[in-house]
Amino acid sequence: MLIVGENITVSTQAIADAVKKRNAKPIIELAKKQKEAGAKYIDVNIGPATKDGEELMQWMVKSIQSEVDVNIALDTKNVSAIEAGLKVHKGTAMINSVTGDKEKLDILMPMAKKYNSKIVGIALNKKGVPPDVDSRLEIAIEIVNSAMEHGVPVENLYLDPLVLPVSVLQEQVLNCVNALKAFRELKEVMGLEDEPKTIVGLSNVSQSSPHELKSLINRIYLVILLSNGLDSAIANPLDREMMNAVRTFEILTNKVLYAHSYLD
Amino acid sequence: MLIVGENITVSTQAIADAVKKRNAKPIIELAKKQKEAGAKYIDVNIGPATKDGEELMQWMVKSIQSEVDVNIALDTKNVSAIEAGLKVHKGTAMINSVTGDKEKLDILMPMAKKYNSKIVGIALNKKGVPPDVDSRLEIAIEIVNSAMEHGVPVENLYLDPLVLPVSVLQEQVLNCVNALKAFRELKEVMGLEDEPKTIVGLSNVSQSSPHELKSLINRIYLVILLSNGLDSAIANPLDREMMNAVRTFEILTNKVLYAHSYLD
Repeated sequence: MLIVGENITVSTQAIADAVKKRNAKPIIELAKKQKEAGAKYIDVNIGPATKDGEELMQWMVKSIQSEVDVNIALDTKNVSAIEAGLKVHKGTAMINSVTGDKEKLDILMPMAKKYNSKIVGIALNKKGVPPDVDSRLEIAIEIVNSAMEHGVPVENLYLDPLVLPVSVLQEQVLNCVNALKAFRELKEVMGLEDEPKTIVGLSNVSQSSPHELKSLINRIYLVILLSNGLDSAIANPLDREMMNAVRTFEILTNKVLYAHSYLD
Repeated sequence: MLIVGENITVSTQAIADAVKKRNAKPIIELAKKQKEAGAKYIDVNIGPATKDGEELMQWMVKSIQSEVDVNIALDTKNVSAIEAGLKVHKGTAMINSVTGDKEKLDILMPMAKKYNSKIVGIALNKKGVPPDVDSRLEIAIEIVNSAMEHGVPVENLYLDPLVLPVSVLQEQVLNCVNALKAFRELKEVMGLEDEPKTIVGLSNVSQSSPHELKSLINRIYLVILLSNGLDSAIANPLDREMMNAVRTFEILTNKVLYAHSYLD
């Protein structure tokens, strides 16, 4: 499975400080650590970045890729900053994320096409949290249609069924699993040539839960989602117990050859 | 989900010694501890018990039930010992287990009917380990047919898709998951009124794996199986991390109401 390392985000004080001072060292270190722990993509969340988003995203991408051979998920609501990041990114970038809102789709899908990047399409729109599985499925279908309309290969599309916190919206946590299952039927339902991939923002599930429960909730939820066919997750690769759960899942489902030393 | 506590077995030295001396105390203690940890049934495995099986099983059942209010899974190949246990058991016993071999089915199904007990039917027969999912399904269908023929309610039947060690037969571990999925279709496929339940002997999956991996492998496999609809497991309820995984699964799938204190 593909892990997108979630740790570089301006919502943490250390990264916010580093960004403010344009001090690349802690950012590069955190990218390196996440890659070593198994992340194949590194998410770079620069927040709303309304003021200097373009320059900031380019500085982040260039700083990380100058030292670490890794692809980056560009994470901000500022679409100009996304494009600025795509311009300087080496390899295949990921756009994280586009909602089902048409005006956003019409800006970001052409970018995904132009720069041949992956793109996360999340089952969310202006109406807020979709109340049920069918609403999420409708949004996903709109996203798939937009991808096709703009010539983005479906295999570059990562559909996100929207993880919500179990402590606040418990019944939505199961809805997300059921939406994932429904997304996996889309190839057949829509007569697509390829299957759109699936992704989640895993840590949302344990938001507002006590600190000592977060890792347990995250990793059990991840195994539930993987058991239902999930392809990838934006998650914390430095959570060793989560990564061990992923490796054990891959062993038990015959994706990786067993060895007594499989965790080493 | 229903956990059948696996810990009382003559394959461990402590229980073998207690049995030899007819010293009930450690057996009762272990039953009590497993019940307190969440086991709803206590498995009592007396081995082949060819010599004094009937007396031994009755002594075990009576000793445990005199002190602990719990149901027992009678576990031995000696069918007379099973019946002896059923005779003295208070509440609803479980027969663990019957294979798909006709002569065994024709002895044990009538017992399950007579004593209104639950019965585990395991996807195994004289031919040895079934090579694929379809072979397991065929055996399961024979077991369901035998239950109906002998008047055992299908809801009392627990079908076991046969867990094998990942370290030895890795591809069979995924076969077991797929067999479980196929068993869950039996109600529709066979036009049954009720759905047969499902069960596994969980710890088999980590047999021959290094000690430090066993608990991890067991609990991740359990979450995979639960995600595919498993109803119950014969397992070690004293493995706290496994029980925490089960509780977290039940929270995340909306079976138990979330509270920050759900593990306490």
